Amino acid sequence: MATEISTLGEFGLIRHLTEGLENCQPSTRYAVGDDAAVLSRPEEMQTLITTDLLLEGVHFDLTYVPLKHLGYKSAVVNFSDIYAMNGTPTQITVSLGVSKRFSVEDMEALYAGIRLACEEYHVDIVGGDTTSSMTGLTISITCIGEAPKEKIVYRNGAKETDLLCVSGDLGAAYMGLQLLEREKLVLTGANQGEQPDFAGKEYILERQLKPEARRDIIERLAEAHIQPTAMMDISDGLSSEALHICTQSKVGCRIYEEHLPIDYQTAIMAEELDMNVTTCALNGGEDYELLFTVPLSDYDKISEIEGVRLIGHITKPELGCALVTRDGQEFELKAQGWNPLKEEK
Amino acid sequence: MATEISTLGEFGLIRHLTEGLENCQPSTRYAVGDDAAVLSRPEEMQTLITTDLLLEGVHFDLTYVPLKHLGYKSAVVNFSDIYAMNGTPTQITVSLGVSKRFSVEDMEALYAGIRLACEEYHVDIVGGDTTSSMTGLTISITCIGEAPKEKIVYRNGAKETDLLCVSGDLGAAYMGLQLLEREKLVLTGANQGEQPDFAGKEYILERQLKPEARRDIIERLAEAHIQPTAMMDISDGLSSEALHICTQSKVGCRIYEEHLPIDYQTAIMAEELDMNVTTCALNGGEDYELLFTVPLSDYDKISEIEGVRLIGHITKPELGCALVTRDGQEFELKAQGWNPLKEEK
Repeated sequence: MATEISTLGEFGLIRHLTEGLENCQPSTRYAVGDDAAVLSRPEEMQTLITTDLLLEGVHFDLTYVPLKHLGYKSAVVNFSDIYAMNGTPTQITVSLGVSKRFSVEDMEALYAGIRLACEEYHVDIVGGDTTSSMTGLTISITCIGEAPKEKIVYRNGAKETDLLCVSGDLGAAYMGLQLLEREKLVLTGANQGEQPDFAGKEYILERQLKPEARRDIIERLAEAHIQPTAMMDISDGLSSEALHICTQSKVGCRIYEEHLPIDYQTAIMAEELDMNVTTCALNGGEDYELLFTVPLSDYDKISEIEGVRLIGHITKPELGCALVTRDGQEFELKAQGWNPLKEEK
Repeated sequence: MATEISTLGEFGLIRHLTEGLENCQPSTRYAVGDDAAVLSRPEEMQTLITTDLLLEGVHFDLTYVPLKHLGYKSAVVNFSDIYAMNGTPTQITVSLGVSKRFSVEDMEALYAGIRLACEEYHVDIVGGDTTSSMTGLTISITCIGEAPKEKIVYRNGAKETDLLCVSGDLGAAYMGLQLLEREKLVLTGANQGEQPDFAGKEYILERQLKPEARRDIIERLAEAHIQPTAMMDISDGLSSEALHICTQSKVGCRIYEEHLPIDYQTAIMAEELDMNVTTCALNGGEDYELLFTVPLSDYDKISEIEGVRLIGHITKPELGCALVTRDGQEFELKAQGWNPLKEEK
């Protein structure tokens, strides 16, 4: 079934998609339906704002990304930015630009993914905008979060001798993308009769198609009374993000290749594609893991946190930022992460 | 001079465009440069959030809209939504999707317009996202504002016997658009040698290309101790917005044709184009004027406010929403405003 969006119109579509939305955050005073949403917080809580613009053909390829997954991921990547401030996401606004090739049912699928993410992370949808587009699908999400002032973690607080830590594992989402690209001909029916070869690769696919934000890590750190000195989420690749923290904190760092957390499926896929798995872990992007620094005195506590790996340490700025390989060589870290505005070389 | 955006890359472009930004709002604690912006307000202040997505070919036509004007307008239409809640805009985030046909200088012009609007309205730019796009220009702006809880005006507070008021005049921006469309062949050089005929039409052009948000009206109402019972801004046309207020407030209304505020240039242009000027005022859209209701007891006070016109009154819901023509006939109001998701008939 494919219902043309024009049968509903802008207001009809918004009403249809936001029907039955319930708010769970006490800070949400008024959500969808007026010129603006209204929020209210106690004075000790600061408000966090982050925004992401996702464009078809640049950030996602609908030949292999189901719309529901896309909706889920679009919301979650914004939550990830709020957790990266050591905050809690509380509201989002969702703006959609939709071309005629999309039906009401397509938008329902996309919105179902966004709503599912919001339910799982206890986030309210408080507003947005829906319009037609000449070409393709545009998704713009702004996420609002909160944190007590003294808990907020910026990128610029890393100190010499701090430990550098990362959650989860790296490079898997990038390998999932490579796999999807490889199987694209099969998925689009160009090679009829064949089946995409996804067996034993479920983890890297899920990391690409349905990433999660690391709320669990933020909670574990809080329970262990660990306050990171600097933190950000890894969306453009570990190298790029480590450089951001070091530049903004005016420090250097050493990252040890042997300590990089890499999943078995990531390693296998890199092998299959004849790619260097360390390069994938450093520059792959879309990991949505947390990269953070903690004081050396937290060594024992941080070693006990499940899902966190110590990958290196902060140094004086003069020492620069380097990867230390298994054989002890040092290579300067470079931001080769995914950058849609830079030409590929 | 045209510098390719790829020479700067995503982070370089953002750094370049946001260089030298200064914050003037006390609520801005941290702006551009981290995973999220950080805001802080006293408890008595509530936070307002609104967002707009503008797509090339749907919301603007760069053959006759200068990029600086586009930037200015993109920001101002968001401020207008915050004023429509009886609030004050304080911060925006700016996300841009840019195709290869745009240069760094183009983005500077667009951003210069956004920055100018922010300076004039004392709004801080606190974040955003910049990415490449496959086609055309995408602008997504989220505006954050504030208001004391008891001052916020929703759409749903209109009461029977309230007076219905509008600021400024209506239909001018729509007439400006018609004029630009008429002169487009000249502007694009298709009819070489001719000059676009804009003499005596400066006002309607400015209303289309460089609208302002009615901060002045909000300030005058506050000075006169008038608290509207319902309010919204007119972006889709008076009819459409009056119906929103009446539906949400569960009331009806009467709007008097003879009281509709219409500028001389709007009337002349409608005449030239053989269009009904009342229809333009009712359905034109993009006026960014304020439509609001006040208690009957404020009649004397509201009559003295410069730039506000009494256009009708609120009724019982059973009476529906109607326009009363000069000869006393009643016509049901219909939302025929500009709606990019509905097919044109």
